[in-house]
Amino acid sequence: MSDEVRIALDAMGGDHGPAVVVAGAALALTRHPGSQFLLFGNAALIGPLLDAKPELKSVSRLVHTDVAIRMEDKPSQALRYGRWKSSMWLAIDAVKRAEADMVVSGGNTGALMAMSKFNLKTLPGIERPAIAALWPTVRGESIVLDVGASIGADAEHLVGLAVMGAATARILLGLDRPTVGLLNIGVEEAKGLEAVREAGHILREENWPDLDYQGYVEGDDIGRGKVDVVVTEGFAGNIALKTAEGTARQLGEYLRGAMQSSLRARLGYLFARSAFRQLRERMNPSRVNGGVFLGLNGIVIKSHGGADAEGFAAAIELGHGVVQDQLLAKIRAALSRHGKRVHQVEAGQVEGRQVLDGAAS
Amino acid sequence: MSDEVRIALDAMGGDHGPAVVVAGAALALTRHPGSQFLLFGNAALIGPLLDAKPELKSVSRLVHTDVAIRMEDKPSQALRYGRWKSSMWLAIDAVKRAEADMVVSGGNTGALMAMSKFNLKTLPGIERPAIAALWPTVRGESIVLDVGASIGADAEHLVGLAVMGAATARILLGLDRPTVGLLNIGVEEAKGLEAVREAGHILREENWPDLDYQGYVEGDDIGRGKVDVVVTEGFAGNIALKTAEGTARQLGEYLRGAMQSSLRARLGYLFARSAFRQLRERMNPSRVNGGVFLGLNGIVIKSHGGADAEGFAAAIELGHGVVQDQLLAKIRAALSRHGKRVHQVEAGQVEGRQVLDGAAS
Repeated sequence: MSDEVRIALDAMGGDHGPAVVVAGAALALTRHPGSQFLLFGNAALIGPLLDAKPELKSVSRLVHTDVAIRMEDKPSQALRYGRWKSSMWLAIDAVKRAEADMVVSGGNTGALMAMSKFNLKTLPGIERPAIAALWPTVRGESIVLDVGASIGADAEHLVGLAVMGAATARILLGLDRPTVGLLNIGVEEAKGLEAVREAGHILREENWPDLDYQGYVEGDDIGRGKVDVVVTEGFAGNIALKTAEGTARQLGEYLRGAMQSSLRARLGYLFARSAFRQLRERMNPSRVNGGVFLGLNGIVIKSHGGADAEGFAAAIELGHGVVQDQLLAKIRAALSRHGKRVHQVEAGQVEGRQVLDGAAS
Repeated sequence: MSDEVRIALDAMGGDHGPAVVVAGAALALTRHPGSQFLLFGNAALIGPLLDAKPELKSVSRLVHTDVAIRMEDKPSQALRYGRWKSSMWLAIDAVKRAEADMVVSGGNTGALMAMSKFNLKTLPGIERPAIAALWPTVRGESIVLDVGASIGADAEHLVGLAVMGAATARILLGLDRPTVGLLNIGVEEAKGLEAVREAGHILREENWPDLDYQGYVEGDDIGRGKVDVVVTEGFAGNIALKTAEGTARQLGEYLRGAMQSSLRARLGYLFARSAFRQLRERMNPSRVNGGVFLGLNGIVIKSHGGADAEGFAAAIELGHGVVQDQLLAKIRAALSRHGKRVHQVEAGQVEGRQVLDGAAS
């Protein structure tokens, strides 16, 4: 495969549409010259943008469609009017038909997940796919999943997330045996936590060679980089991700305000300008843009809807990493290796559960 | 009542025990000279600390007990060995016996909640108490609840949280009709969200005069101050709170690193020193330390376990605010005003639910 990666792009996705998608693809191409692009969307809008980037155009094919998925639609609506013919569907379908190695979209997350699931289907043993995010930490980066694909989780689902998250960390973070933690809260209460506790027991008991389970982590452990993979169900995961984004934006505003609060502060800012630039770079969400959809028969990358060209390029590059290191093959192998245990839980063996519950109390 | 507030202190609670509690009380006394303190804990440890603060000592009574609740114990364990005799129990009991207007503890949150519930009992119409946090935002402060008292919530519980949270915002933020949002995630999926959707319908339909329901908010809207009261169940709420704390700490580390990265940066730091001090002050969690337990027959304030004297004083002062403005009476009134609607939901009227579900889909 080398550097030759074929990328399907939903050119109408995201808050800024084709302008950001084309500019992002052009940027990504300079870093991965072997890329080939398949763009889906309104040719009247995309054509002129491609004409302005001849190098990109020479490795791209543009497929016209009038239908674009709106950001505010529910997945069910999007499926109704967008199946078979929207830019999002066609881009996913290119992966299904093996014309592309991955698809990147900045569009409606729920619609992207619903169409991906409908068209690509899930991997054996996985009922619900997940979205994994690369989370910057003081130690580097961690993988956090699920950050919003589905709400609620039983033990089986959490164990599946741990297995897929660890496979992703092995590839994206280059680790042999990533550390894994289950997101939990300090307050102990029996109700509502059975799934987390049961998943913890399974992970500890199995002690798989490719996954180093470290126990529970709390919200403030994520940014600390306490573990390489943080596992949680999608509601709490999405709220954690968005809250962290909001807090970073808030502190950025505080900092800007403080640096303009006096003449001395402004002078200080001038002196330290390059340090501030470096800080802004670290705090820049574009740097690690892109969520990977896990559990599907194909690589789907979600770029942030509000991303700029740099951010969209980062999402494409994330895809390069997982395609070239064959994430899908590795997840399939891990799931089939650990599948027996996952399926035992799925079957809901009462004896096993009772033993686990007894040990937990 | 004027400034005369009687405060029961669990002097053994928190990571630093009596040293921080006594120093915090002394600080709070300088700001609220009418305070009186009842301290519970090991007299051999607390006595000398009080001796060193004669002004505090003159308005304090020290009650000895050998038993202190450990930070790592489960609520059930704590109740077993600590009921009737621990410093935490005795401090709560002082509120029950009307010897104190509120209790402040930096101890084990789960144990504090369990003992408070057991001893003080919940308000009519409230089954499970909640913890409300003051959350600093770019617009000022918001109330976020529940940040970890209990896991999971049905529509009734969420509506109760909204009513109590709005009453708290009226007092602590001085607002006539606080805006209220339900924490949710952008991805739409039917499963798992019924409770949030149903609560939203009730709040919108009722349109109470003391609560301005604004719809759903996402994690990044909290720090933006989009609404005055953010309502969520305790698992997601606790993870949001801890994640925000962790992100603030992480960015603080980035900033420190950047300001030491070069000679120019260090010079800039010197120039802007007072701006950085101001920034540190804004980012300082001590500034808004303290969670208020809502839904109990008594005021219970939880100070952060790791708080310093300044933080513990902030928690005491938070209590002053809610005691003097008679939070409890106002919550009772709001609950009895809105109780009928809340109880309709509790009774699980099938017709009402179906109408709501139909309208939501």
